[in-house]
Amino acid sequence: MTPSDKIAAALARGQRFLLLTHQDPDADGVGSVLALGRSLCDAGKETTLLFQAPLGPPLCFLKGAERAVTQLDDRKIFDAAVILDCAEKNRLGRAADYLYKELPLINIDHHETNDHFGTLNLVDPKSSSTAELVFGVIRAADLPMGPEAAENLFAAIQGDTGSFRYGNTTAKTFRVAAELVDLGALPWDISRRIRDNHSMARLRLLGLALETVCLRLQGRVAVMTLTREMMEEAGAHETDTEEFVDYPRFIRGVEMGVLIRETGQNTTKVSIRSNNWVNAARLAARFGGGGHARAAGFTCRGAAGTALTLFLKEARRFLDGTRD
Amino acid sequence: MTPSDKIAAALARGQRFLLLTHQDPDADGVGSVLALGRSLCDAGKETTLLFQAPLGPPLCFLKGAERAVTQLDDRKIFDAAVILDCAEKNRLGRAADYLYKELPLINIDHHETNDHFGTLNLVDPKSSSTAELVFGVIRAADLPMGPEAAENLFAAIQGDTGSFRYGNTTAKTFRVAAELVDLGALPWDISRRIRDNHSMARLRLLGLALETVCLRLQGRVAVMTLTREMMEEAGAHETDTEEFVDYPRFIRGVEMGVLIRETGQNTTKVSIRSNNWVNAARLAARFGGGGHARAAGFTCRGAAGTALTLFLKEARRFLDGTRD
Repeated sequence: MTPSDKIAAALARGQRFLLLTHQDPDADGVGSVLALGRSLCDAGKETTLLFQAPLGPPLCFLKGAERAVTQLDDRKIFDAAVILDCAEKNRLGRAADYLYKELPLINIDHHETNDHFGTLNLVDPKSSSTAELVFGVIRAADLPMGPEAAENLFAAIQGDTGSFRYGNTTAKTFRVAAELVDLGALPWDISRRIRDNHSMARLRLLGLALETVCLRLQGRVAVMTLTREMMEEAGAHETDTEEFVDYPRFIRGVEMGVLIRETGQNTTKVSIRSNNWVNAARLAARFGGGGHARAAGFTCRGAAGTALTLFLKEARRFLDGTRD
Repeated sequence: MTPSDKIAAALARGQRFLLLTHQDPDADGVGSVLALGRSLCDAGKETTLLFQAPLGPPLCFLKGAERAVTQLDDRKIFDAAVILDCAEKNRLGRAADYLYKELPLINIDHHETNDHFGTLNLVDPKSSSTAELVFGVIRAADLPMGPEAAENLFAAIQGDTGSFRYGNTTAKTFRVAAELVDLGALPWDISRRIRDNHSMARLRLLGLALETVCLRLQGRVAVMTLTREMMEEAGAHETDTEEFVDYPRFIRGVEMGVLIRETGQNTTKVSIRSNNWVNAARLAARFGGGGHARAAGFTCRGAAGTALTLFLKEARRFLDGTRD
């Protein structure tokens, strides 16, 4: 039995499921939870969708997002918890408090760094997204897949593939997308609601951020910086910065695009995207972070300038091949 | 026999083909010409790929682009000219001078406004792109389709669908994309070379342009303006403005996004994108322009301010439903 088959059997057998994803979730995490939740629910099962915090725009515009909760009755019993798109249990944040000792954990993920924390594990770093794996599991378990589940899986795949253009996009990804459209997913409608639905504040912030873009390390790294002042000046939120890192990344000739963003008084988040060969996950791991080979990040203490200096020192070693 | 079959038969029968597309071509026009050219060539036929002007970046990075010419020996004889992605013969510009009277014209296009100027016509406005039609013709004619043709068709489809997210993206589009990936098209490699390969000048220009974005007509229209001074200040080229119109278009709640760009001393180009229901092609036609229902444009005399005033007056009628 494949891991997918084992998980399908567990889903078919159980009746009460808790579904979770990592904290600060992206479209893949949220879309996967909503889609699998919908399918299980349509199969007559009892589902609880738990996020650490309420969803803001745009992910709250996904269908079924209103069914999610942020806390639970402690005594609630489940047949299993399905944890989606989450490389380690501690990435669940406070939601992990609800995982009592005897609860079987079903771990479905595509992060290379996943530590197989589950009772059952379906971990495939070759998959474009967790949603593509969830699609397979829903099929294997013969669960219903209506337009709402299809839309959520589509939004999730679109999110993690940068709309079918990042290196994780395969022929299979396109075949799954075709099936999701057949099932009722509307690409343009989903894009408009989730991906291409921006506030004026985001545009203002992007304008400010573009002015900061500069090339470093002989043009091999392009850096964009977002200070707290810029966020305030634009009246923008954290979610407005989604995909900003692609602007430095997509400059001709650049190997790495980096977004340095001040997230608090003395904390800075560094998002790394590599274009060809630098392993961004390993570079981020040097600072206690993680992610994928081409998209990773970490958080460190200090303001943007400090973070950049530290980062560039280590990035140079990776680019020069003296560390990998 | 379907139009596609008739064209397939003509391609199988003939030996010498001239391939053309509209002036100022986009990825769909160029990719379709290069792909069909490659397939015909691989079938042992003689092909001439004619563009009105040399291709600049990024389209010159498409494989086989170096085979294209911008002029011909006047006495050259062909079995047919295949005209791709071109709604009217006069959109060919100077390249039309080479179409001698007896030359059969094969017209393959997806513009709603196509006037069926060809001897044979395959016009399908429901197709995401001309490239999707060319894919069908290559299959119907049983021509070879190697990695180079696949890549060019993929780049063309990606261009016209905004990377598989605009309303023209169908389940069939995804299935064709899956086949193209099977045949050797590499989504990330193509994106990086053609779509996500920007100059620093483009980023500077985008920064300047974002500062101009404003809402008009009770927030139903968002306008971005590019003056000649801004182009000069950023050191940017016309091709750097590709997809700029999506920034105003994707503002929450907007029905129409508009890019007003000064193209010469006294000429301005207006690009229109509609999100839901306004027919952009009909609106553009009021000014002698054209395009698709959701993406159209026109050129007019005067500077940006004049063009905007004229445009908004007409746009209001469309939005108010007093004209359609």
